[in-house]
Amino acid sequence: MLELFSTARLQAILPKIKEFIEQEVIPMEKIVMKKRFFDAEKQELHELRQKVKSLGFWTPHLPEKDGGLGLSLLEFGQLSEILGLSPLGHFVFNCQAPDIGNTELLHQFASKELQEKYLKPLMNGEIRSCFSMTEPEFAGSNPTMLGTTAVKDGENYVINGHKWFTSSAEGAEFAVVMAVTDPTNENPYKKASMIIVPTQTQGFELLRNISIMGEEGSGHASHAEVRYTNCIVPQTNLIGNEGDGFKLAQSRLGAGRIHHCMRWIGICERILDQMCAYVSKRKISEHSVLADKQSVQHSIAECRASINAARYSILHTAYGIDKLGTQAMRSDISSIKFFAANVLQQVLDKALQVHGALGMTDDTILAYHFRHERAARIYDGADEVHKSVVARDILANYGVKVKI
Amino acid sequence: MLELFSTARLQAILPKIKEFIEQEVIPMEKIVMKKRFFDAEKQELHELRQKVKSLGFWTPHLPEKDGGLGLSLLEFGQLSEILGLSPLGHFVFNCQAPDIGNTELLHQFASKELQEKYLKPLMNGEIRSCFSMTEPEFAGSNPTMLGTTAVKDGENYVINGHKWFTSSAEGAEFAVVMAVTDPTNENPYKKASMIIVPTQTQGFELLRNISIMGEEGSGHASHAEVRYTNCIVPQTNLIGNEGDGFKLAQSRLGAGRIHHCMRWIGICERILDQMCAYVSKRKISEHSVLADKQSVQHSIAECRASINAARYSILHTAYGIDKLGTQAMRSDISSIKFFAANVLQQVLDKALQVHGALGMTDDTILAYHFRHERAARIYDGADEVHKSVVARDILANYGVKVKI
Amino acid sequence: MLELFSTARLQAILPKIKEFIEQEVIPMEKIVMKKRFFDAEKQELHELRQKVKSLGFWTPHLPEKDGGLGLSLLEFGQLSEILGLSPLGHFVFNCQAPDIGNTELLHQFASKELQEKYLKPLMNGEIRSCFSMTEPEFAGSNPTMLGTTAVKDGENYVINGHKWFTSSAEGAEFAVVMAVTDPTNENPYKKASMIIVPTQTQGFELLRNISIMGEEGSGHASHAEVRYTNCIVPQTNLIGNEGDGFKLAQSRLGAGRIHHCMRWIGICERILDQMCAYVSKRKISEHSVLADKQSVQHSIAECRASINAARYSILHTAYGIDKLGTQAMRSDISSIKFFAANVLQQVLDKALQVHGALGMTDDTILAYHFRHERAARIYDGADEVHKSVVARDILANYGVKVKI
Amino acid sequence: MLELFSTARLQAILPKIKEFIEQEVIPMEKIVMKKRFFDAEKQELHELRQKVKSLGFWTPHLPEKDGGLGLSLLEFGQLSEILGLSPLGHFVFNCQAPDIGNTELLHQFASKELQEKYLKPLMNGEIRSCFSMTEPEFAGSNPTMLGTTAVKDGENYVINGHKWFTSSAEGAEFAVVMAVTDPTNENPYKKASMIIVPTQTQGFELLRNISIMGEEGSGHASHAEVRYTNCIVPQTNLIGNEGDGFKLAQSRLGAGRIHHCMRWIGICERILDQMCAYVSKRKISEHSVLADKQSVQHSIAECRASINAARYSILHTAYGIDKLGTQAMRSDISSIKFFAANVLQQVLDKALQVHGALGMTDDTILAYHFRHERAARIYDGADEVHKSVVARDILANYGVKVKI
Repeated sequence: MLELFSTARLQAILPKIKEFIEQEVIPMEKIVMKKRFFDAEKQELHELRQKVKSLGFWTPHLPEKDGGLGLSLLEFGQLSEILGLSPLGHFVFNCQAPDIGNTELLHQFASKELQEKYLKPLMNGEIRSCFSMTEPEFAGSNPTMLGTTAVKDGENYVINGHKWFTSSAEGAEFAVVMAVTDPTNENPYKKASMIIVPTQTQGFELLRNISIMGEEGSGHASHAEVRYTNCIVPQTNLIGNEGDGFKLAQSRLGAGRIHHCMRWIGICERILDQMCAYVSKRKISEHSVLADKQSVQHSIAECRASINAARYSILHTAYGIDKLGTQAMRSDISSIKFFAANVLQQVLDKALQVHGALGMTDDTILAYHFRHERAARIYDGADEVHKSVVARDILANYGVKVKI
Repeated sequence: MLELFSTARLQAILPKIKEFIEQEVIPMEKIVMKKRFFDAEKQELHELRQKVKSLGFWTPHLPEKDGGLGLSLLEFGQLSEILGLSPLGHFVFNCQAPDIGNTELLHQFASKELQEKYLKPLMNGEIRSCFSMTEPEFAGSNPTMLGTTAVKDGENYVINGHKWFTSSAEGAEFAVVMAVTDPTNENPYKKASMIIVPTQTQGFELLRNISIMGEEGSGHASHAEVRYTNCIVPQTNLIGNEGDGFKLAQSRLGAGRIHHCMRWIGICERILDQMCAYVSKRKISEHSVLADKQSVQHSIAECRASINAARYSILHTAYGIDKLGTQAMRSDISSIKFFAANVLQQVLDKALQVHGALGMTDDTILAYHFRHERAARIYDGADEVHKSVVARDILANYGVKVKI
Repeated sequence: MLELFSTARLQAILPKIKEFIEQEVIPMEKIVMKKRFFDAEKQELHELRQKVKSLGFWTPHLPEKDGGLGLSLLEFGQLSEILGLSPLGHFVFNCQAPDIGNTELLHQFASKELQEKYLKPLMNGEIRSCFSMTEPEFAGSNPTMLGTTAVKDGENYVINGHKWFTSSAEGAEFAVVMAVTDPTNENPYKKASMIIVPTQTQGFELLRNISIMGEEGSGHASHAEVRYTNCIVPQTNLIGNEGDGFKLAQSRLGAGRIHHCMRWIGICERILDQMCAYVSKRKISEHSVLADKQSVQHSIAECRASINAARYSILHTAYGIDKLGTQAMRSDISSIKFFAANVLQQVLDKALQVHGALGMTDDTILAYHFRHERAARIYDGADEVHKSVVARDILANYGVKVKI
Repeated sequence: MLELFSTARLQAILPKIKEFIEQEVIPMEKIVMKKRFFDAEKQELHELRQKVKSLGFWTPHLPEKDGGLGLSLLEFGQLSEILGLSPLGHFVFNCQAPDIGNTELLHQFASKELQEKYLKPLMNGEIRSCFSMTEPEFAGSNPTMLGTTAVKDGENYVINGHKWFTSSAEGAEFAVVMAVTDPTNENPYKKASMIIVPTQTQGFELLRNISIMGEEGSGHASHAEVRYTNCIVPQTNLIGNEGDGFKLAQSRLGAGRIHHCMRWIGICERILDQMCAYVSKRKISEHSVLADKQSVQHSIAECRASINAARYSILHTAYGIDKLGTQAMRSDISSIKFFAANVLQQVLDKALQVHGALGMTDDTILAYHFRHERAARIYDGADEVHKSVVARDILANYGVKVKI
């Protein structure tokens, strides 16, 4: 095992966590993923989370003083890869999106009071949260177009708006809502703020869990359309300062993209393993198996090379963020985001082709990832947006100003 | 409108059928596709089918004397494209797979008695059928590996076996079963036969509708796993002669691939239209829409060029089958099968990327096709098999014998 | 042989022409292509051209009354495919670019006097010509940016400018020069005109044959950089009307793209044949040849399917131009241009990979096409331009005006 | 500058070497590459080599005690990238293939006498050498098929055979020849040996410099076809032991692939820079440049992401070879070989498309790399071979034995 990206700390814990994922988590997938989320949450997921706590791996992304493992981003990335081997992994370790992002946000920018009220139970896994930014009427590629408003009224904000892809809203305790607080600010990046809105607030209406690729999902595994109608919350629910909305969103996304990208690597590794196991057993004639076909061999090799390439790029970027910060690595972050998302899609596609009819069924995890991770090239910035970001940063050195 | 592939007959009926699909069928999709199939079959689908009958377009693939439109394959292909604009199209016109294939099979090869008993109600749309060939234990790429057996016992066959992807089995009146009747025949292509097994036969067990890409489906829109345990049927249920199984399967597939390929063209055309309509309206800033982006424009152009290329290849092949027969066009059929399936996948993928988050939702038909038509590169012969067939036919001219 | 795109006339002549290309032209390639063009022109090429004349196939693109074969574009396309089997084909039949385009231009738009002086000897193959449009300082994607001017002075034009990619200028009798005659016209598409400039004119300076992919070439097989310094020609050398430059360029390109595209199909067919012949003989072990490798087989099949798809698209477009004219088929022309150019590049690339080290050598024709036909995606409109044209025509139906 | 792959030593020398390449070497390209190699060797190349010696960077790949820089492979890889910025870089530093491989070979495996006679002048840059393995009659993918024989006769070997792609043979002092010494050995990998044959030996016949992509080249920049007819050399010219041929070839290739791959990264970086510089200046209308086009921006971003991915994969592999040896990293070496070669081809292709007509000309270095580096996917193991190696190593873990 090469140690270039590894550390003593990681070498001590990763094998244990991998064993736990393989022995305890993956076998529960078939049961959990057929249930409604809320039923699994009370039973199987609850039991798995208790085990993680007792093993000392709970909320691994947090500093040690807050009960986490105090990992660098480079280290957490590699942990995220292992958790990504199962769709349940991150949830069971309480570092699932969108809660992990909200945790980091509240940890860095929220008042003591908000931290006490929202961050603490979130860290304990007692509640869940959601992040309410995307709006159906406006293109995500232009974050300055936002219809939701938060208007001051005495000590409160009155919030009105229409959001979707407010993931995990069903059953969440609160939403972090992106809303325009200063519509006339000349700088479009200073118009919006992030405000906590408890889901019990009057006027918070979960219109539906959007059916995504054939599934409405439930609980944590759902994506809600939400309407905010005259939702009143105290101004103290503001995170950071007024007008910080975009700044916070950016800070939220830097590390988040490493998390996602390394989770995808975990998916890729599992799928490649499944692919190899399948073709090694699948007979195509009395004396040969699918693995004997050159086209299958080449698919495996192409997957291996691409996954490696993506993995080392991501880890190098994580290393850079640890050393130089998010801003300095902005172009690298965009590079790996679209590169890794495309590797993921290609690996899933090749694996599906090799599996034949079986790949289309839900008898393996493959079809689940094939349909849901198509979104990897869209969420947190579509390929096209990230490519433009990379080009902008490069071409600035040649005196060209790229508009995105 | 260019007439190279068109005929006077087509020009008379296609616009009417297109209008019917657009005005009557597409608007019913949201209702029908949310219901269980059996509920829709009794109501919305029934009404639509009655309208088709009254318009005189019922079972268009059949000869005029049998109540069809008496179209050439070149003509029917173009009709199939129009029907393919909606996932309901073929069913509403009673030319849906697998019934259309079974209809053609019984029409050409079944005894008068079997035709009277099974073909007639099938043509009338009174019953549905299924085709039971694929087995989970054996690779579809090698059709001579088959575990299901039909053993003679007096005047009957006793059938035992295990099948899956017996599409539309739920609610079907009978299955056409591929079973080994002559296990010791030296020619592996002479071992199997096709036999009709009514689904009410004792020992016919529909184990499950296989969950495919997240959906078990129901009725016509389902794919069953079936076990045959000592199913007894009279030997008169044999289609064609004993040992004809593979020959019949081949004949079934020639025209069938034109049907599918042109249905995919219909899907492509609808999706491209949806894509253009969406990007023309979707604002990305106050004064610009998504269609103003060069990457979007290029995606549209690439789709247009690829769809055209696939379409003309398919129609040329259909023309060839009409003139020279399936056997002479075998290599062309394989060429268009994998070429068109890949065009379909690319069009769906590009459209999804352009739609952003909306593409992942079931608010449009796109996600449905994205997940279900991934199978196009697998069913009726995987890409790899068809490529080998093409290479075999070409390389035979150079003295090389390709093994598939 | 299917007759969908064929005609009795074609069936009478194509086999003879193919035989001539295979028996007489291809065997001369190694000799001709190693010589300087002017040497080959006097000997081998001259002899081949005499044979073509005696066979009655000279300048096949012209109407019968002008000594040609009077073919429709659909027919000539198929002839161009056969001629394209050899890089010498079109020249030997006197229908090589850029002369073929100039011939058509003069035929349609030039005065009797110009026709007598320039068109006639061109048709007879007594002289060659060149077309001088592209300028190094301005992007070809924007044809309205043009630095060359033609200023009236008495009865003459005085022409100044700097051109490159004036193909075949070396040894040409005259150039058709695109020059700005009306710099202040509000319509940028009305600013330029086409004017004949004999290469003997004082001030016409062939600066160099540009080294292209390692070769400067010579004669017809060269691409010149030319400077025009106070070149004086009579105003009667104008083709068409003043300001018609762009209109004429467009008309020149419609049929020209069919010629090129079908020439590429000819190249593809020859290369695919060479590929099959090679892999069938090339031993990779005592008992197997390269053709036994699945990856090789799949490359062959992918080439076959793509070539077919391109071919039928091009022929369908040629049919459309014959029936409806160039303007009506503008979007189809752009579609096939970039689609076919990409198929060509992929076929050449796959063939090269299959050939291994041999493919890199000039022992076969493959490396020649690999390096020189990379330009297919650039000349006569880069891929990006044609994609935008297709998108513009499609999106106009949705109310969007695409800028190119 | 991130230090993950860097070292203090590298940080001290790389900027100087980069400056030398940019200031001294690149400006000489136009002059050197137009001359015959032998002329440039005596003048421009000689002067540059003297400068490198005086700067203390000569033969950087060798241990310090032998006059090199004593770099790890990870370090030399990064140096190779910088040298790769110019096609002249490696030659000027005396670490050009095939001499660098022969140097390493003789350094590790040759007798003192051979080292004195051949290695020393090679290290001093007084002579050049070549490597004679590939044969036209046998496929490189199967290295055990070899027609060249070395038969013992007294104290000598008598060598007969036919080789090609004996690169740089013209002007070389000696060839390292792969020849069968033990034709009946049961183990096909023990049949051959490596033997030094001075090019002055009677019977050594340089048949031709093979024309590659239009150029025969000369001297170091050429690829010879060679016939060995009863060439007599003393048995002491054997490198290593008899039968070691394949083992030595393998050892030669491990580090060699890192050298090549990092050289390709150097090419990619230069071309990407050239691309950015070009599009930033190239006007496409009065107020916009090519860099304003989204398709251009996306090409740049895709190049950046792919080059990064390849670079980090290669450096990780170099690190692994330093730590664990070539054998342990065999699969990684194959992965990066085909991955990086494909990135190179794509970068060159995208750059060429963006450059338009200019890209086809030899006015920039681009066309040179486009045509000559197509071989990167072929030499030192074709993509297909390396993919099979990767698959073999992976599938061995699943109990499948892949034949290559």
